[in-house]
Amino acid sequence: MPTTTKPLKLYSYWRSSAAYRVRIAINLKDLACQIVPVSLVADGGEQHSAAYRAINPQELVPTLVDGERVIRQSLAIIEYLDEMYPQTLQLLPAEPRARARVRALALAVACDIHPLNNTRVLKYLETEMGVPQAEREAWIRHWIALGLGAIEELIADDVVAGAFCHGDAPTMADAVLIPQIYNARRWGLDLGAFPTLTRIEAACLALDAFERARPERQADAPGS
Amino acid sequence: MPTTTKPLKLYSYWRSSAAYRVRIAINLKDLACQIVPVSLVADGGEQHSAAYRAINPQELVPTLVDGERVIRQSLAIIEYLDEMYPQTLQLLPAEPRARARVRALALAVACDIHPLNNTRVLKYLETEMGVPQAEREAWIRHWIALGLGAIEELIADDVVAGAFCHGDAPTMADAVLIPQIYNARRWGLDLGAFPTLTRIEAACLALDAFERARPERQADAPGS
Repeated sequence: MPTTTKPLKLYSYWRSSAAYRVRIAINLKDLACQIVPVSLVADGGEQHSAAYRAINPQELVPTLVDGERVIRQSLAIIEYLDEMYPQTLQLLPAEPRARARVRALALAVACDIHPLNNTRVLKYLETEMGVPQAEREAWIRHWIALGLGAIEELIADDVVAGAFCHGDAPTMADAVLIPQIYNARRWGLDLGAFPTLTRIEAACLALDAFERARPERQADAPGS
Repeated sequence: MPTTTKPLKLYSYWRSSAAYRVRIAINLKDLACQIVPVSLVADGGEQHSAAYRAINPQELVPTLVDGERVIRQSLAIIEYLDEMYPQTLQLLPAEPRARARVRALALAVACDIHPLNNTRVLKYLETEMGVPQAEREAWIRHWIALGLGAIEELIADDVVAGAFCHGDAPTMADAVLIPQIYNARRWGLDLGAFPTLTRIEAACLALDAFERARPERQADAPGS
């Protein structure tokens, strides 16, 4: 295991898909990391506490602490880890076009699907707009289906895609895709239209790094 | 002007804030680029046309074409340009912690504000959920105010911030922030609570690279 200057600490919530991405990346890079749970449901959300706000004014998980450094935003954290600890698996390829492809796949989830289905957004739809549960669930499935459909097409058409999103080793794109597919299943989306993505999901879930990052495997998951 | 192998081509819409980000980056890097307008309003949206779908299955702008290469997602495009054409201003700093800071600021806009106020999302709220105009505008202002508030705090508290988001030269963070402030003004948000951000905005808009990228300066803007 590569030595970090001081132990890494990740503020995480078991079901947060942004935190799940970073847990996968940390495992893929074989880094030692202490997971600090931040409950998004207890006491109206611990992410709104003064203690957590002090390290993350956005009141969102995850946050990474590496010694004196505080790193926010899941994709920025993953790229930071890749740059700081290059001794193990690289989560971004070396060539600019390939890097752009991996980033674009990750951003297609992180910008165009996930933010619309975040806890805070669903809460706003419910409490501020009075949108009923069934319509909120239709909203969730709409954005996931639209986004995964485009990503399926991008990957299926591309000769670069191999066992994983980009070639035959997992990258940042897989670390971001798998939590989104987990969410799709959680909300009952039919995944039949995404054969390439479910094939990649199976390849990822067979790896210990992905298995250990699963929400249900976290210490703060109910019943764990 | 640095020589690119073949001329760059950017599929853009004058008022798309994701396209505006990339226009700023291209100008800051002093790259020659042909702007190809894609109207998000004409004919039900030219981004849905078969011709555009062939290069961008997400049916979103912008898309960059660099010779044979097609690059999607605004932040991936900006990082690609920075890596491919390092001869001019670097839009990301060199040190990993600094890079993470610039990326986190950009992602705080690109993931946590902008996707919620996208044309397609506002359209869904209107047509699928019947949310009235006043409530849609309250929704827009809510997410912008929440997001800019956190970014104001992150920048104001950080000794690294200088004339711009990160030090005394513009970076990717400024290229992403300025279009979001433009949107905030468009929707009538009071910017009094964001003195650091408006100071940075003034510094940016004084630069020709930002001025030429402004929506109203584009060939496809109404009345231009």
